[in-house]
This record gives sequence, C-alpha cells and structure tokens, in this order.
Amino acid sequence: MTQYLEAKRGNITPEMQTVAEAEFLEPEFIRREIAAGRLVIPANKNHLNSRKPDGGGLKPCGIGSALRTKINANLGNSGVASNADDEVDKVQYAVKYGADTVMDLSTGSEIDILRRNIIGSVSVPVGTVPLYQVCEELDDIVDMKPQDFLDAVAHQAEQGVDYMTIHAGLLQEHIPLTDSRLAGIVSRGGSLTAKWMVAHKQENPFYSHFDELCEIMREYDVTWSIGDGLRPGCLHDASDAAQFGELSVMGQLAKRAWEFGCQVMIEGPGHVPLDQIEMNMKRQQTECFGAPFYVLGPVVCDIAPGYDHITSAIGATLAAYYGAAMLCYVTPKEHLGLPDREDVRNGVIAYKIAAHAADVALKRPHCRERDDELSRARFAFDWEKQFALSLDPERAREYYNRSRLTACGETSPPAAHCDRYCSKCGPQYCALTTTQELQELRRQ
Amino acid sequence: MTQYLEAKRGNITPEMQTVAEAEFLEPEFIRREIAAGRLVIPANKNHLNSRKPDGGGLKPCGIGSALRTKINANLGNSGVASNADDEVDKVQYAVKYGADTVMDLSTGSEIDILRRNIIGSVSVPVGTVPLYQVCEELDDIVDMKPQDFLDAVAHQAEQGVDYMTIHAGLLQEHIPLTDSRLAGIVSRGGSLTAKWMVAHKQENPFYSHFDELCEIMREYDVTWSIGDGLRPGCLHDASDAAQFGELSVMGQLAKRAWEFGCQVMIEGPGHVPLDQIEMNMKRQQTECFGAPFYVLGPVVCDIAPGYDHITSAIGATLAAYYGAAMLCYVTPKEHLGLPDREDVRNGVIAYKIAAHAADVALKRPHCRERDDELSRARFAFDWEKQFALSLDPERAREYYNRSRLTACGETSPPAAHCDRYCSKCGPQYCALTTTQELQELRRQ
Repeated sequence: MTQYLEAKRGNITPEMQTVAEAEFLEPEFIRREIAAGRLVIPANKNHLNSRKPDGGGLKPCGIGSALRTKINANLGNSGVASNADDEVDKVQYAVKYGADTVMDLSTGSEIDILRRNIIGSVSVPVGTVPLYQVCEELDDIVDMKPQDFLDAVAHQAEQGVDYMTIHAGLLQEHIPLTDSRLAGIVSRGGSLTAKWMVAHKQENPFYSHFDELCEIMREYDVTWSIGDGLRPGCLHDASDAAQFGELSVMGQLAKRAWEFGCQVMIEGPGHVPLDQIEMNMKRQQTECFGAPFYVLGPVVCDIAPGYDHITSAIGATLAAYYGAAMLCYVTPKEHLGLPDREDVRNGVIAYKIAAHAADVALKRPHCRERDDELSRARFAFDWEKQFALSLDPERAREYYNRSRLTACGETSPPAAHCDRYCSKCGPQYCALTTTQELQELRRQ
Repeated sequence: MTQYLEAKRGNITPEMQTVAEAEFLEPEFIRREIAAGRLVIPANKNHLNSRKPDGGGLKPCGIGSALRTKINANLGNSGVASNADDEVDKVQYAVKYGADTVMDLSTGSEIDILRRNIIGSVSVPVGTVPLYQVCEELDDIVDMKPQDFLDAVAHQAEQGVDYMTIHAGLLQEHIPLTDSRLAGIVSRGGSLTAKWMVAHKQENPFYSHFDELCEIMREYDVTWSIGDGLRPGCLHDASDAAQFGELSVMGQLAKRAWEFGCQVMIEGPGHVPLDQIEMNMKRQQTECFGAPFYVLGPVVCDIAPGYDHITSAIGATLAAYYGAAMLCYVTPKEHLGLPDREDVRNGVIAYKIAAHAADVALKRPHCRERDDELSRARFAFDWEKQFALSLDPERAREYYNRSRLTACGETSPPAAHCDRYCSKCGPQYCALTTTQELQELRRQ
C-alpha cells in the first residue's frame, strides 16, 4: 500500500493525520488532495519503520500546492570535493535552518555509505538521483544496462530513500529541439540519459522501463520525482519546445504512475525570465494534472554568479505564489563550485524567505502571525524576542551585537538605554522612539 | 530653467541627449516623458557646473518607468557610528558596484563637510533628507522654525544636492490613522515631522511652505523626492488608510511642484506583502499622475533580519516590473545596525539583480544581451569572460578559484583540463561537457 492507494480507498493514514496537524487543515482534505494526485507525502516504508522510540526518525511532510510551500536542499559530494562526514554535517545544518527535505546528490566516493548515514541521521524526507550510483560503478554511462538502473533503484528503495528523481520524460524526439539552445542540456541526469540514448540510438530506458520502475516505487512507497532533463539552463532557453515537449510527456507519465498507485511530483526549471514564471506554473498544472511542482529556483537573471541564491529566490517566490509546491534551493556557489556549510545556510535561508513570502501572500493559515509578532517585538525593542522569531537567530544576534558594541561601547553591565536603538540611527533618530514620544504627546 | 521647463518648451537639453543615448531611446521621447512628469533627470545646476575637463563630475541619469530601472544606495554616518572618511569610501564602493544614485543620510558629526565631499567625489546624482541637518543643529526637532528648514534646503541646493526628500504629504489628519499600526511611523523624517506637528498642534510645515520650497528647488533644478513619512514598517501596516491618505496628498503636491516647473519623484514603501505590490504600484501611478515612483524595497516578509537585502530584493523586482522607476537598496544590516562596506556591496548587487531581472522581463532595449553573452561564455567554459560579464566579477572569480583549487590542486602552470569543470560536479558529471559529447556523437 502507498499513501496514494490508501487515500484512493478513503483511508486516512497516521502520516496524513500528521500533515493535517502541521498545516492546520482537515485530515479529510489532505486525503482528498492525495487521492487527486495534488499532494504527496514522501515517506518510504523502510524510512518510516526506522523511527525510534525517542521520536527520532522520519517526520512525514506533505508537499502540494494547497499546503505551505516546502523547500529542499541539495547536498552530496562530488568526485573532486568534500567527503562523507562533511556532507552529513551539511545535511544537518540544512535541516537546522529549515530545509523540509534534502536530496543526496553525491557523485563521489562511498556514496552508498553516505546515503545510509544521511537517511539514518535526519528527520526529513531524503531524495536521490539513482542514476549517479550507476555511473559511479561504470567507466562511462554508455555502458549502462537498463537492469543496472532497476537494481540501483531497488537497492536505494530498500535503503529507505523517500523520493527519487528519474529523467523518464526526455524522449529521442526532444534532443534535436535543444540545438537552438545556448546552454544545451544542463541537467546532469538529463545529459547523461541523452548521451546514452544517442550512443545506443534507443529510446530513453527509464521511459521504456517505466512500468517496472513504478512497481519498485510502489512496493516501498517511494515518491516519483519525474526529472526535467531538458530544463532551461539560461534565460534564452526558457519555455522552448524542448522544455515543453518533455513536460507534456511528464504529465502522461504522472498519470501512468498513478495507475500503478504511486505518488508523483514533477520537477521544473531552472532559468526563467520573471514574465514567464506564471505561465510556466500554470502550464505545468494543466499538463501534469495538478501533480505537485518541484522547481529549481528559477533563476531570473544570468549575470550574477556568486549571488544565485538571490537571483533564484526571486524566481522561487513567484513560482510558489503561482502554484509551485516545493522549491529546490540554489546556493551562492551555483555555477562556480560545490557549496560549503555557510553556502548551505545562505541558500536555505534565502529559500525560507521565498517560501514564507509566498505563503503570506497566499494567506496560508497562521503564516503571517510570526511576522506580526516579530514586528510587535521590534516596536517594543524586545531584541531577544526578535531573534527568537527570526529565520536565522544567530545571524540577527551577531549583527545586532556588533552594532550595539559600536553604538554603546563595552560596558558591564550593559547600559540599558542602549536597547532602545541601533547603530543605524542612534538614539536621536530612531523612528520607533520618536513615534512613541509623539504618541505620548498626543495622550497629554 | 529646469529640465522640466525646458522639456515643456520643446527643448532637448544635453542632459536629455545623454540619457537618450544611455537608454537606446530617442531624445524626443525622453523630452516628452519629462514634460509629462513621468521622467526626471536629477541634476542640480551647481553639480552639473562642477564637471571637470577630464570628464569627471556628474553624469546625468534618467529616472522614469520608461527607462531601465535605477537603484539608489543610502549611505551616511549616524551619531554613534562611522565617520566622514568611511562614508565617502562606502559611497565610492556603492558606485563601483553599480548604484545609479546615492543618498547621503548622515545624522552624525560634520555632515556639512561630508556632504560636500560626497558631491565632489561621485559621478552619480546625490540625494539628501535636509531635515537631518536641521535636527543636528537643534536639541529637539520641536524647536525647529520653518525658516530653519528653508535655509537648510537653500544651503544644500547651493552645495549641489541633486534631489531632496521632504516629507510634505503627511498631514495632521493622517496621524490618528497610524493608531492601529503595529510599527507606528518608521520613516525617520516622517516621525520627526509628525512629532513637530503634534507638539505645535500645527499642520506639516513642509506642506504649509511647499510653494517656497518649490521656488528654491526650481532655482537650482533640485528634483523633488516627496517623502513617504507614513510608509508601512511591517506587513501588517501595509496599504492602510494612513499610507494611502498620504499618497493622495503626495499626488496633489506633485501637480503643484510641476506648476512651479520642478521635477518630481514620489517615494514609496517599505514593507508590502507580495500580493499587494502590483496594486500599490498601480495606485501610485494613478494618484500621482505617473510621477516616477522611488520605492524602498519593499520587504515581503518580516521574519528575516540579517537577510533583508533578500526579502526586499524580491519585493523590489516585482515593484520594478509593475512600474517603479527607482529601487532604494536595503542592506543585510537593515533593522539591526549601520551597514559596513561589505553590506553596501551585498545590498547594491542584490538590487542590481532586482533591477536587471525586471528590465529583462519588461524587454527593455538590449538588456538581455548580457545574460545571453554570459550564458554562451559559460557553455564555452570561458571563465574570464563570465567574470567580466558578471555583476560582481571579484566575487565570481573568488568562488571559482576556491573551487578550482579544491578540484584540481595547485599545479604550475595550472592544468588546462581543469578549466572544463568546477568542484560541484567534477569532470565526470559536468552536464555541459556531457552535452558537448553527445552533440559530437550525433554529428558522427
């Protein structure tokens, strides 16, 4: 049984119950959304069963356009950088700052052990791209046999992976459509899949073996994340025939996966100019029958390497506002190198901002209360409460402490009047203080 | 004569010519937009006249919704932090990274000398809030005589300030409308003005003396920036009766300033939820007869102190897309302290991204060419060209060099093959390389 099949049969599972509580929604509503294919709870049975008596282990999380916007953090080593320990550390850092799911995209050494350690150490759903493990075991992707891939999927499913990205929608007919692109195929999995197809002059093996894959996914209730192998890699390539040709196939595959009783998400772009984001989100919802859209950014300008957590958070906010269910973060190192711990932190916070800004705008239950509480604390100069309500309390405190030291010097005990301003305006120009003074004058 | 009066009389000034060339537009179009009040060229005659034979000095810059989106950087010391030298240094840093205008908002010591040094050292228009100088010369704003303020405006106009923010639209009737707010009056100038009004039980002196102010502004062609003293300081307070009451008066004042022959911009919020940004931009355009809208952010969520360059760049992108002409940057230190050099850099780049993303989406002439060129360089692994086309070449290079060192080690001469990947994917998983390999296979 899967969450989808349970929902179809009218059953509310404990996981649906948990999601309903977290989202301030009715369990029956959650069930209906899952049955309609509009909501997934990525929770591999083996990951769920590994839950510990102390409450450790997977906490089910719902992903769907009717819920709070979720964010994913991509992690994992490469063949030339980082190691297993550092990546587990980064995963925990990502979760600490609010990642709702993590993907282990390791392509370096010891990826099997690393994956097991990540699954064992976090409470959020874990996703993978199983093709990478196959590649690690071969000299060239061209040597892959389809059975190698099915075995890798079964192995990772057994390990407890909650969702898997498989680039099954990219067909032979789409490849020539990328000829007019500036950036070709920028999806790692997509480019490897296309290379195999071109070398063998055969159809996409994940498309050809889709039914067998569905059977494995159903057995463990691994959620499909149908990968967008042809996502645009620059503004120029956005919304082209290759991207939308693949999207249409992804929609058909979503339907097929539902017939097998699987849960399904659809992956999305990438790089998209601001004025095309709404159209992209609506088109996905139509072509993929409402399956949750899991987008990477999108980046809205190509000229800011070193700041792509910002270029993409702008696009991600709009994507979520127009219906994306989950936002895959982008770090400042995107296009330049593997992110370190601090990049992970900056990427996660930028995406918590994007998700929250969209949720506030969509008036999701109880979302703006935290903003209002923080604003009240700000007006009351209650710094500790401001920090506690912040997305990154350590950073807010660090900046304020530095400011306070400049503004007031180091006195022991700290001068209480210093709590009433910061170094930006000083005591004479704080608008909040002036407002409070004029309110007092009005009462006299 | 002012740019506005020249335009009204059908004359194309050298400044209009310069703006037309920079924007790839016809000089006659620029003239028409200025005459319609939809475009300003903040260029104080004394600042223009200080131009040097080597080409140094003010370079005229157009601000209007038909032009590329401009960004402003706020700088200046406070009574408790920074000094004149550091602030001049930050101003130059802001301009280096792309600020189109700067505002000197100093409230600390030696602000007269600091202002003169800033005007003398940069090629971009300089704005101020003249009220701060008046405050510096008094113990309490309540002691201000209207003539003190007129004198300060005349003095700064004579110094060459190109545009001035004066909070003339905030009326007595608006003050009680702020009672239901969480954050009161968060504009420094607005709160000081309101305090004076409450203490004296008199109407806003800048409103009462608006005509005299216009005469000074016209004499030097100082552009009005009618300050939004009642801008919302948190999501809760956005789009309330106080904000829109003031906005309506600002529109009337814009008309009055045009009657005097002055150029006019209107300042805007602040903190606005994502779903209210379009409405806010459209409402300003209607209420203020198309006068250029100069917005501060807006911040789209209140829970991320330490990251408000991001929360606000999201709002700023949408604001520009829906018609704002200039975006005032926000730094990571907003709400916490005075920005340092690095904060200025981060704020400026976040806003260059916002402005550019909007300009690309609005299909402004030649804007996307730089993105496409960078994407071509990326696909060709031409790192030097990528850096050169980046908004922050130093940072992109720094991140890439670190990545390359990890990926390839330090060899001398550097191994050429290392140019073909970064530490994120390594040589085996670079999608660009894989695309090039499969393109080669297809040609065979």
